[in-house]
Amino acid sequence: MISIINPEQLSTRRQTEKGTARQEKIVKEILAEVKKGGDSALIRYTQTFDGANLQELQVSAEEFDEAYQQVPQSLIDALRQAAQRIRCYHERQKSQSWMVTETEGTVLGQLIRPLTRVGIYVPGGRAAYPSSVLMNAIPAVVAGVEEIVMVTPPGPDNRIYASTLVAAREAGVHQVFKVGGAQAVGALAYGTESIPKVDKVVGPGNIYVAMAKRLVYGQVDIDMVAGPSEIVVVADESANPVYVAADLLSQAEHDSMASAVLLTPSPALAEAVAMELKKQCDRLLRKEIATESIQNYGAICLTGDLEEAVETANRLAPEHLELMVKDPWKWMGRVKNAGALFLGPDSPEPVGDYVAGPNHVLPTNGTARFFSPLGVDDFIKKTSLIAYSHEALCRDAESIITLAEAEGLTAHAESIRVRFKKGEENE
Amino acid sequence: MISIINPEQLSTRRQTEKGTARQEKIVKEILAEVKKGGDSALIRYTQTFDGANLQELQVSAEEFDEAYQQVPQSLIDALRQAAQRIRCYHERQKSQSWMVTETEGTVLGQLIRPLTRVGIYVPGGRAAYPSSVLMNAIPAVVAGVEEIVMVTPPGPDNRIYASTLVAAREAGVHQVFKVGGAQAVGALAYGTESIPKVDKVVGPGNIYVAMAKRLVYGQVDIDMVAGPSEIVVVADESANPVYVAADLLSQAEHDSMASAVLLTPSPALAEAVAMELKKQCDRLLRKEIATESIQNYGAICLTGDLEEAVETANRLAPEHLELMVKDPWKWMGRVKNAGALFLGPDSPEPVGDYVAGPNHVLPTNGTARFFSPLGVDDFIKKTSLIAYSHEALCRDAESIITLAEAEGLTAHAESIRVRFKKGEENE
Repeated sequence: MISIINPEQLSTRRQTEKGTARQEKIVKEILAEVKKGGDSALIRYTQTFDGANLQELQVSAEEFDEAYQQVPQSLIDALRQAAQRIRCYHERQKSQSWMVTETEGTVLGQLIRPLTRVGIYVPGGRAAYPSSVLMNAIPAVVAGVEEIVMVTPPGPDNRIYASTLVAAREAGVHQVFKVGGAQAVGALAYGTESIPKVDKVVGPGNIYVAMAKRLVYGQVDIDMVAGPSEIVVVADESANPVYVAADLLSQAEHDSMASAVLLTPSPALAEAVAMELKKQCDRLLRKEIATESIQNYGAICLTGDLEEAVETANRLAPEHLELMVKDPWKWMGRVKNAGALFLGPDSPEPVGDYVAGPNHVLPTNGTARFFSPLGVDDFIKKTSLIAYSHEALCRDAESIITLAEAEGLTAHAESIRVRFKKGEENE
Repeated sequence: MISIINPEQLSTRRQTEKGTARQEKIVKEILAEVKKGGDSALIRYTQTFDGANLQELQVSAEEFDEAYQQVPQSLIDALRQAAQRIRCYHERQKSQSWMVTETEGTVLGQLIRPLTRVGIYVPGGRAAYPSSVLMNAIPAVVAGVEEIVMVTPPGPDNRIYASTLVAAREAGVHQVFKVGGAQAVGALAYGTESIPKVDKVVGPGNIYVAMAKRLVYGQVDIDMVAGPSEIVVVADESANPVYVAADLLSQAEHDSMASAVLLTPSPALAEAVAMELKKQCDRLLRKEIATESIQNYGAICLTGDLEEAVETANRLAPEHLELMVKDPWKWMGRVKNAGALFLGPDSPEPVGDYVAGPNHVLPTNGTARFFSPLGVDDFIKKTSLIAYSHEALCRDAESIITLAEAEGLTAHAESIRVRFKKGEENE
């Protein structure tokens, strides 16, 4: 199932789907139609693509009530516990506006304010992922966003997954609309009769959704483009191969493009994990997907020492990095690039997917080199504040004029000079 | 030159240049050639596009020394003063890594680390803008970026503007390379023999540079796409029309696409500013550009009251917003969307361009609704930290398993279960 390789044999990047020119043409057409036709275009596309026959795009209060009836209480409780912990963690991410005063009377500062309106895309498809609803919506709620709008495609029965609706309500989403695909992204970017125009669109989707987001970028902000899931486990001989294999498989089951890599200096652990992978894989519901992903993008990689293992992890810059080594805290400082870092044997990656509190929307495909987990900062904007005093302007006038004139910008210089001119011209 | 209009007549968005399919083909070809050919491709393109004949891409220590000889001491002093103030402001933007411990022994946190390498694009062209070098590089220096690389096209004399080099040195740039255009962006994204591969590319450029940045996005991070400059002045009858006109012109002179808008409830001020604009414009070096920009995108807009003026400013979400009103602090809280906010008569916008300290790289074209000024946060990345204890895993196991199974992810559930299994399988 898996062979043991050297660090040099690891490839660091997978191809990401960019979409074809034909798909782009379709998406552009959909966006233009939504801009022009509003709700009626949305209803038409939802009929065509989702087979749903809608009178009303917005999910009603009754539908929410029904959803709560349908979802088992144990799942509602679990979602509530998760929501509470996610809120708690993200509360700590909040930054405050700040100011600083100078002796000349100048005040400088940075104002931090929430975005006004945010749209969250939630994919439809074969399964519901209520945890993703929590992870995308709660940072926006904590940031103080006034209006959080969710869009998600209905099934042919005109309905949304009950667990998706419960998660939306628990997270604090204000309105949910039954529309998906590029048309949903267009609705959020331009606004329609029933869907308000937002400032930012977040959430994963298929290639049409991703393309639509890229095309409306600038009109609204978007989140990073998420790729297939990844896990790297750095482990030494102290690690339990059963745990390591289980954690690798937990990512491999996501999809056949997912990547699960073990980096270890221990040949014994490498062998044991290889055997465990085979054994545990047979027990999985998603056995085919996990097997394919392990075969295509999985690897057990033998390194010279732990240092090389950590260095290799930095080169991979994985979405999830587990350190299952004797003293993980000692190695934490060596980790440069990872979306989320899991320390020790009791921190399997799924803890972070659901209830630990940190966000599970993380940079993939090596982008942890420069991207960060989704968080409160993604739902705020900053404004610089400058309130100069006349004394401070006096102090700095010469420098400003020198710099402006060196750059050939005489009107910049003039705007300073007029403030020091005496006489009728100025009063 | 300018007519007085109503808020409804204001258009909130200007077209931004997206580039043609032909230009995109050229840029893609250049990127591919740079990826393949490295330095030799860069030298070839620099010959073709810039007319420069380079042996060596990197600016030498001697060239830096010469630059300091050529630049007037007054300009060096002004750049130093500006650099010091910009550093001081940005130091306050730094966030710290944080951790929180729970009674069960769990540690959660967020690690904040600087990007490893950053590339700064500095345009060539008719004039040097050393202040932009400071504004792009200093936040990276303050963030703690290990290696800051600057690229800028040389003139046909194989040289870079002396003031650009002085600003680079004063800001703390580590290496400067003589290459511009799409080829420079490619070099930063892929790395060549002499130019290191970076994690992020920032800085303004022409349409080819902007397209190249868009195409390498994901491979590296990029900054927002900056549009033409904008200023909105909200003023009441207390404002000095000479100041207002001078500040409007200070943005209008940037380029013919720049936008300068006065919003005021005072007809007297509106009239006076219209007259002043005409008068002051005649004195400017860049009179033609300023006139064209005022005619195309300038406006004096009469509002019902100050409240409507501020509301209109929020709708425009301008790059720069000046509040020249009797009590600007009272109105600050009403401002929702602005890149930088200037309070009172002694805070003309050029103060913020050069020496106040806040960054002059700001969101344009209505994007202050969701984008922020360039800052230290643009040069860091975050990693979530999860270190669960066995007790905490016990506490949360049921919720995790419930959620994972509700999402059909049984391997996720298994990774928790294996940690509670007894017997030979596990030891």
